[in-house]
Amino acid sequence: MSPLSSLITIERTDRQSVYLQISNQIMVFIKDGILPADHRLPSTRELAGLLGVHRKTVVQAYDELLAQGWLESHTGRGTFVAANLPILKPSGIGSQPFTNGLKTAGFSLNPASYTERPIMSYGQGLHLDDGFPDVRLAPLEELSRAYRGQLLTGNAYTRLGYGDTKGSIWLRQQLSAYLNTSRGLHTTPENILIVRGTIMGLYLSSNGLISKGDSVVTGVTTWAGANTNFAQAGAKIHTIPVDEYGIDVDALESLCQNVKIRMVYVTSHHHYPTTVALRADRRMKLLKLAGQFGFVIFEDDYDYDFHYLSKPLLPLAGADPKGMVLYCGSFTKSIAPAFRVGYLVGAENVIDRFAGIRRIIDRQGDVVLENAIAELLQTGVIQRHMRKSLRTYRSRRDFFCELLGSELSQHITFQVPDGGLAVWAKFDKSVDMKAMSENAFRKGLGMSNGLGHGLPAGENFTRLGFASSNFQELEASVQILKGLLS
Amino acid sequence: MSPLSSLITIERTDRQSVYLQISNQIMVFIKDGILPADHRLPSTRELAGLLGVHRKTVVQAYDELLAQGWLESHTGRGTFVAANLPILKPSGIGSQPFTNGLKTAGFSLNPASYTERPIMSYGQGLHLDDGFPDVRLAPLEELSRAYRGQLLTGNAYTRLGYGDTKGSIWLRQQLSAYLNTSRGLHTTPENILIVRGTIMGLYLSSNGLISKGDSVVTGVTTWAGANTNFAQAGAKIHTIPVDEYGIDVDALESLCQNVKIRMVYVTSHHHYPTTVALRADRRMKLLKLAGQFGFVIFEDDYDYDFHYLSKPLLPLAGADPKGMVLYCGSFTKSIAPAFRVGYLVGAENVIDRFAGIRRIIDRQGDVVLENAIAELLQTGVIQRHMRKSLRTYRSRRDFFCELLGSELSQHITFQVPDGGLAVWAKFDKSVDMKAMSENAFRKGLGMSNGLGHGLPAGENFTRLGFASSNFQELEASVQILKGLLS
Repeated sequence: MSPLSSLITIERTDRQSVYLQISNQIMVFIKDGILPADHRLPSTRELAGLLGVHRKTVVQAYDELLAQGWLESHTGRGTFVAANLPILKPSGIGSQPFTNGLKTAGFSLNPASYTERPIMSYGQGLHLDDGFPDVRLAPLEELSRAYRGQLLTGNAYTRLGYGDTKGSIWLRQQLSAYLNTSRGLHTTPENILIVRGTIMGLYLSSNGLISKGDSVVTGVTTWAGANTNFAQAGAKIHTIPVDEYGIDVDALESLCQNVKIRMVYVTSHHHYPTTVALRADRRMKLLKLAGQFGFVIFEDDYDYDFHYLSKPLLPLAGADPKGMVLYCGSFTKSIAPAFRVGYLVGAENVIDRFAGIRRIIDRQGDVVLENAIAELLQTGVIQRHMRKSLRTYRSRRDFFCELLGSELSQHITFQVPDGGLAVWAKFDKSVDMKAMSENAFRKGLGMSNGLGHGLPAGENFTRLGFASSNFQELEASVQILKGLLS
Repeated sequence: MSPLSSLITIERTDRQSVYLQISNQIMVFIKDGILPADHRLPSTRELAGLLGVHRKTVVQAYDELLAQGWLESHTGRGTFVAANLPILKPSGIGSQPFTNGLKTAGFSLNPASYTERPIMSYGQGLHLDDGFPDVRLAPLEELSRAYRGQLLTGNAYTRLGYGDTKGSIWLRQQLSAYLNTSRGLHTTPENILIVRGTIMGLYLSSNGLISKGDSVVTGVTTWAGANTNFAQAGAKIHTIPVDEYGIDVDALESLCQNVKIRMVYVTSHHHYPTTVALRADRRMKLLKLAGQFGFVIFEDDYDYDFHYLSKPLLPLAGADPKGMVLYCGSFTKSIAPAFRVGYLVGAENVIDRFAGIRRIIDRQGDVVLENAIAELLQTGVIQRHMRKSLRTYRSRRDFFCELLGSELSQHITFQVPDGGLAVWAKFDKSVDMKAMSENAFRKGLGMSNGLGHGLPAGENFTRLGFASSNFQELEASVQILKGLLS
């Protein structure tokens, strides 16, 4: 009897198929010298009988090892451990039993170049979130149909092969027309890079424009995700105050007189997280300072579409003939966060450079999805959806702010926001925000504790997103909060 | 008569809507001091009449300017240029006429950190490409149905909200089981990061593990895209020879004795571009050297599924209990290049670190598509598709190699590849590869001139992809080549 059969163990409940279990174990025996070079193996019929498996399984296992060069077959004589294997009994390689799921790599990791922010989960129940859209309103049927059409129609080789790193030309054409008409921009499709949301616009801009030690200016408070991105690119971050009219551009001017500034990050339309709009004279001055001091303005227009006072302000990018502004927006709020399609707008030479960087990151976007969105823009589906959403969100804002006023005015103060999908709410100093948020989660209400906004201790602010909940859900959410605060 | 109406010009053919044309021009007049603070504007009715537009259009324009703070409305008295605007006549801001499509930004660009590779187009006609799959075979109907299901079914808030940076847990579960069973890996879902193709696996690995000046080893020849990625991370690239058994691991050993190596890049299964498999003893030695010298092995398994000799070799990653290997694959070749879904496999601490980097690049993948692919893996659609493709590609390989032998043996020599989707073809020294490729393109045949592989002048090699063409197309392609070479 061959000793081999007593060494091999087969776990039929294992995820790995039986032939691989056999071939892997034989490989280990060869590596470990248990089966020496030129050792003759039992015939497949013999081993199959001893192991109680189908002969075909052993044939598969041997074939595997033959293909890998561990075994040699000599016609008429049988199967042997290969003669020309290097004689090795490596320490640790192949001689340890494998367990699935290695925890730690054998090589070292460099220190991380930035601090990771925790990921907030709002759970599956009620939510007063960071200001997300209500994806139940999104034109998903239309999107599904358009996706199918783009997937199945036309020349498959070009449609489903490698595409343009700048993104679908159709989507860039549609977006160019849309942004020029509705937001007063001055673009051609060559001024547009399709990106995977604002975060990629920030990543490309940071890595394409910021050198280690360059100075970047953000407001206090601001979106921490932007700061993380600037930090990983090696930026030195300077901060300027934010008041009810947005960032303080006089403070920026003073700063510019002392420090060479490379980039200023601004959420001009609805300041994040406080929701206020940058006032017209400040916009003018910001543009003027950019021209004067030569800095880049990164205009993050994350929720342009949702403004409740007559018409929204136009972006800075529309009043920037010198090309100081990089303008970034996405379909995160106008369709759903899961669709990672956004746009970065700038002068052609910048867009070209960023496309070159993008090429080595992920080569290109999702051209099928991009074309589906282009179709929905061309047919006006997205525009209609946004008008409908705007009306819905305005009524939810009004309903929610009334509720907050009538039910929670003892604990929460706030301004009714002119736009955006969240209320910037100040909680009473006595509230332990962290405990409140954790207790809310236990009661089925997801909400942020606001600590990620980097305010001083005792400054109890957080964003309460109202757009993703209907009236009943808003009512139930406020009742949970009321129960916790009373 | 107000002078305003004579200053405003309206282009009805312009992409910009009429109200925006009006409001933008008025804004410029205010900025330029043509309309001073407190200046009274004509009534909307009056201006509408003078401009020959609907009154509603002028109301919209004024509303825009009121919202932006350029104008003030005093009930009963009319509309005025705002009193509290800063007095400014900025040089260049707003005073220049806009033309769509700025070419050059107003800020400077840093020098690029690497040389961009040209993008090869194979056109819309015939193609002997780099080794792409035939997307006409892909299970697009099934994919479309699965996509629709994932888009429309379940809790929309969680399904279409922000998701896990590591990728769909369902896809990671399916992939873990699939990779363990079919490729002998030892993974749990926590060892898998869903990426947007191999290029993102390389980008994360380069930026996560390589510090400026670190040494990386690649073969000569190799995939230039990998070198670009290592170069942008600041790596010093060392090369070792490649022969008919893959990279020369003895040369690697000598190198390791002199230089501290951080990473070795290997296409172990089908060396790119030459298609040969790394021999079993070299695989063993490579793993042993990684353990001994502490370097990372980046195993790019770009077309594992397509091997025509019994069973494919198993990946290095399956014989790596120490965790020296990062294993990367994608659905580029098994579905289509347009679907940017791949997987990076490694120890948990590495996957966690890379997920942190990914979070600031694009936050997450396309979870709807990822779930659709998970469904197709679970139901076996992708596995069946790959088995069918393998048979088809094998017959195309045989057909194509016979054609090359019978029609072009005077000009081309090659080995029949054991796997992969392309033939590594050596053209006669007399052939001007660049001219031939350009002439072929003019005749409707897309093919690479092979110069991107970085071979010495006169070494006339290129890849001729056979998988994406059927017999008729292969026949027609070879006839075009024959015409050009005769």
